[in-house]
Amino acid sequence: MLDRIRVVLVNTSHPGNIGGTARAMKNMGLSRLVLVEPEDFPSGEAVARASGATDILDAAQVVPTLEDALVGCSLVLGTSARDRRIPWPLLDPRECATTSLQHVQQGGEVALVFGREYAGLTNEELQRCQFHVHIPSNPEFSSLNLATAVQVLAYEVRMAWLAAEGQPTKQEKLETTAMLNSLPVTADELERFYAHLESTLVGIGFLDPAKPRHLMSRLRRLYGRAGVSKLEMNILRGILTETQKAAQGAAYKRSDDDV
Amino acid sequence: MLDRIRVVLVNTSHPGNIGGTARAMKNMGLSRLVLVEPEDFPSGEAVARASGATDILDAAQVVPTLEDALVGCSLVLGTSARDRRIPWPLLDPRECATTSLQHVQQGGEVALVFGREYAGLTNEELQRCQFHVHIPSNPEFSSLNLATAVQVLAYEVRMAWLAAEGQPTKQEKLETTAMLNSLPVTADELERFYAHLESTLVGIGFLDPAKPRHLMSRLRRLYGRAGVSKLEMNILRGILTETQKAAQGAAYKRSDDDV
Repeated sequence: MLDRIRVVLVNTSHPGNIGGTARAMKNMGLSRLVLVEPEDFPSGEAVARASGATDILDAAQVVPTLEDALVGCSLVLGTSARDRRIPWPLLDPRECATTSLQHVQQGGEVALVFGREYAGLTNEELQRCQFHVHIPSNPEFSSLNLATAVQVLAYEVRMAWLAAEGQPTKQEKLETTAMLNSLPVTADELERFYAHLESTLVGIGFLDPAKPRHLMSRLRRLYGRAGVSKLEMNILRGILTETQKAAQGAAYKRSDDDV
Repeated sequence: MLDRIRVVLVNTSHPGNIGGTARAMKNMGLSRLVLVEPEDFPSGEAVARASGATDILDAAQVVPTLEDALVGCSLVLGTSARDRRIPWPLLDPRECATTSLQHVQQGGEVALVFGREYAGLTNEELQRCQFHVHIPSNPEFSSLNLATAVQVLAYEVRMAWLAAEGQPTKQEKLETTAMLNSLPVTADELERFYAHLESTLVGIGFLDPAKPRHLMSRLRRLYGRAGVSKLEMNILRGILTETQKAAQGAAYKRSDDDV
């Protein structure tokens, strides 16, 4: 089950941190590491700091974009040390772990995303995450070492997993169709929905591309938080398609009026 | 209160781990570091890995024996990765943290003792501890990096401390307007939204009132689960209004066609 929780490191500068991450992951029973544009990898320093967790390094996927790293994920959690202008659903590490575990128990895939050593994740990257995770820390000295931050989250995941192993698994007996429909959508499906939503909102004149303000990020937050199922996604996409047809008809009508 | 919980490192080989420990401690609000016969200290590598937590390194006490390190402590907890021949009272990191915190709340002093990178604490050292602490880990790969192990225990201490202080484990800074906007909508607002949504879906031809099936109940479940805020409700209602305008235009157009 823990193999459906991946750790994603974005633009890591120091290979030692990649090695330290691999070690922390293996210590806690996690195995899937995805590296988005690491500055220096593979690297002897990573192997040294992995201290025997080289199988994690060898199996690590290196990808060019965060989007690639999130393919197949239906729950994306991003670590953040910063105050943000738009408040976002925020979890502490313990809540992050229980949320992640519930999600994989229901058949989903989870990504725990960690940003750059000095700059963290960009706002754009953070907006791809349904939840932000903040490790509670001394406000005057809040920036944790990257591998250490991975350790804290992985530790909480293991604690939650051990607790869950002592309990009966819920919802094993869903019928096949119901099960498929109730699966959470993946990050890429969600992205396609947002693109469709955005073009629809532009189409009906609700969203001005010249002045988008925070509209899309607010809608992302809402739907991200909801954890949309595949069935619900089909409904939402159907609504958008019909809305677009309606809007096109009206635009056609208006252009008639103009003549 | 956290200044009555000291971290004791015994015979540390790598100065980088001392620096990493200082950083992890300061991140979590701990300040007292005691080093029993470190192999290489002070050290530039420790300063580098401390990443700004040099005040902790500067104030670190260096002592010749574990006994010296424990002077004044009324509760001593020793970390252990190994199976021991003599069973000993064993705590997980969370229990370690709550026990430590209760102890300092009652006026005591606590030591969290960490052993050597490769060999841990000796049996004699472990017998000086009232409790042993084990960080749950993969049985096939159980040895954590030293600074990382310090991080896990210090993190749990901070979580317990925040809970005891009545402080939130996460801090969202909302301004007043943002706060009002982020309030959840009331049940009646939600009902008005569903009515508006339903009439809109009928208007765009997505919902057939003669065959409504489960569409509205599925949408209710989705938005109900999301916990829509007042700001988000305004956005959703705005989208519906614009959709209706678009649909009316199109319907008007279609009735023209019919003539």
